[in-house]
Amino acid sequence: MAEYDFSQFSCPLPKTDYQTIQMAHGAGGRLSADLIDKVFLPVFGNPMLNDLEDQARLQFNGQRLAFTTDSFVVSPIFFPGGNIGELAVNGTVNDICMSGALPKVLSVGFILEEGLPIADLHEILVAMRRALDKAGVQIVTGDTKVVNKGSCDKIFINTSGVGVIPDGVNISAKNIRPGDKIILSGTIADHGMAILSVREGLSFESTIESDTASLNRLVEAMLKVSKQIRAMRDPTRGGLATTLNELARSSGVGFKLEEQQIPIKQDVRSACEILGIDPLYVANEGKLVAVVPDEVAESMLEAMHRVPEGKDAVIIGQAVEEHAGRVVMKNVYGVERIIDMPVGEQLPRIC
Amino acid sequence: MAEYDFSQFSCPLPKTDYQTIQMAHGAGGRLSADLIDKVFLPVFGNPMLNDLEDQARLQFNGQRLAFTTDSFVVSPIFFPGGNIGELAVNGTVNDICMSGALPKVLSVGFILEEGLPIADLHEILVAMRRALDKAGVQIVTGDTKVVNKGSCDKIFINTSGVGVIPDGVNISAKNIRPGDKIILSGTIADHGMAILSVREGLSFESTIESDTASLNRLVEAMLKVSKQIRAMRDPTRGGLATTLNELARSSGVGFKLEEQQIPIKQDVRSACEILGIDPLYVANEGKLVAVVPDEVAESMLEAMHRVPEGKDAVIIGQAVEEHAGRVVMKNVYGVERIIDMPVGEQLPRIC
Repeated sequence: MAEYDFSQFSCPLPKTDYQTIQMAHGAGGRLSADLIDKVFLPVFGNPMLNDLEDQARLQFNGQRLAFTTDSFVVSPIFFPGGNIGELAVNGTVNDICMSGALPKVLSVGFILEEGLPIADLHEILVAMRRALDKAGVQIVTGDTKVVNKGSCDKIFINTSGVGVIPDGVNISAKNIRPGDKIILSGTIADHGMAILSVREGLSFESTIESDTASLNRLVEAMLKVSKQIRAMRDPTRGGLATTLNELARSSGVGFKLEEQQIPIKQDVRSACEILGIDPLYVANEGKLVAVVPDEVAESMLEAMHRVPEGKDAVIIGQAVEEHAGRVVMKNVYGVERIIDMPVGEQLPRIC
Repeated sequence: MAEYDFSQFSCPLPKTDYQTIQMAHGAGGRLSADLIDKVFLPVFGNPMLNDLEDQARLQFNGQRLAFTTDSFVVSPIFFPGGNIGELAVNGTVNDICMSGALPKVLSVGFILEEGLPIADLHEILVAMRRALDKAGVQIVTGDTKVVNKGSCDKIFINTSGVGVIPDGVNISAKNIRPGDKIILSGTIADHGMAILSVREGLSFESTIESDTASLNRLVEAMLKVSKQIRAMRDPTRGGLATTLNELARSSGVGFKLEEQQIPIKQDVRSACEILGIDPLYVANEGKLVAVVPDEVAESMLEAMHRVPEGKDAVIIGQAVEEHAGRVVMKNVYGVERIIDMPVGEQLPRIC
């Protein structure tokens, strides 16, 4: 009988300031990054994972593919503008297409709590199907687990997905250069404030709705203008501020933003003010940030305006040589301040 | 601004005998199948998903790929012979290679409960890494969510994966023909009884250990003998009986088993007798069932015996023209009985 080597891999217990998992480990800010750096990467680290992009890029037979995964634990599972199901479809579709890939297939893994009404499950599934149809993708494989009452909160959904990266497309934070323009596809903080308004029982003249949407049609329109998109991310957990910080750090250039350029709906702004929350740190679920060369920025913007998901797209700033790796924002009075990574827990279970 | 059609998909609320999710919906038996048939497939159904194989088969640039997903909610998370981490790696590796594919990359999605000790998480990660090394695969993308204490049970793990299907390999239940031999790679019921023995506080002379293992080396050895493997499955949830019923139904042929050929460890048999459980319905996590043409069965078996995961492989029966779609087992006295799908809940949260 042939024997083979069993892995002798070992790794000392990491030294961390915490002994147990905290809510902030899941909030997308500094503590999330610390968990990844100190606990996950020393064990799993490999060149592809270490890139910390939102998707892995694979190559088979000369065909480049994007591969990504996301679990969804949002509470409540139904919220103004959507539910956990369409969020799960759109979230993974978006992670795929932020690499420039065309999303093709998804897998879905359900964890269901004993006692979940079939009617609720059905409503979630129908919303998923509609989101799949809009994005033009299919679920091709799945799994369902059930846990006893009290062992999960109604329903958790994992989606993973595969997309095809077109030839000539090479989107990565490492490509950003000073002088590049930063484009934001629309208003910020809608999703997070929709969830929080429900939780806090806030009411405004109009209901704040989640912006959950798939962005692949928008990305296709952008790539038709130019394949020279340097970097692209969807600012979900941790919001625009976190995403821009990640891009600045990975690229080693500085970002300079114009505060008055960043679009935000009036009722979202009011909700943020009432709750004392900075909208820059609030999750979006149907927006993207793209860094593009100066010379294509205006034509890119025009193309975005012709797609529903990009109708409010604006240039919010640019990459600069100064303050490498940091994000600085100038307000309407010309005063500059550093926009940092969030430290603690912003909004738990936002997606 | 270009408008596009939004999905008008609708689907009536399914008529089911249950109004809420039951534990048995996750047990892999008849109620699981009913949930898939009545609730999931009417909404998500497409040709690839409707096959109900353990993995989807994709094709990009002429390269065939296997794509699969599995969520793991086993309780307890540490058990004799393994933990939830290596189970999550081996389970998805095995679902990939049951298509004959060589597993290449995995994604991982963690749902962590607030308060989970970092030391426990670390132990799980290290076990995952060792399982990855043994299988020769890497985690290339991941996601971590945290939920508040009481909203999940310590840790749930989703793994999804992609593998490469070699040319000439075409493994599907639809290929099974009467006269084919059924090979089982080793003893049954080890994983399920390891979990249950811990839960029930049973003790025997030796501890019953889970058989969790990756099967890709075994499958590679089998494919070297012949690419003419008709069908292959790993008998996890629902055990050997459920897997054989699924294969018989999908292929439309009958299966005839010899009870005395089915290997089972003595302490596993004793535990089953004490608890009144039929080991045919108990989960395995490191075993496979292969249906192969009669003429390659013996050489296949010899090759399997040379690999640690196949050292106890045996021919347990054959496909027959009679009782199409059903599984019949002959005991040591020559008495035949029908082995049916399990109806209710066997063992919750076994994987």
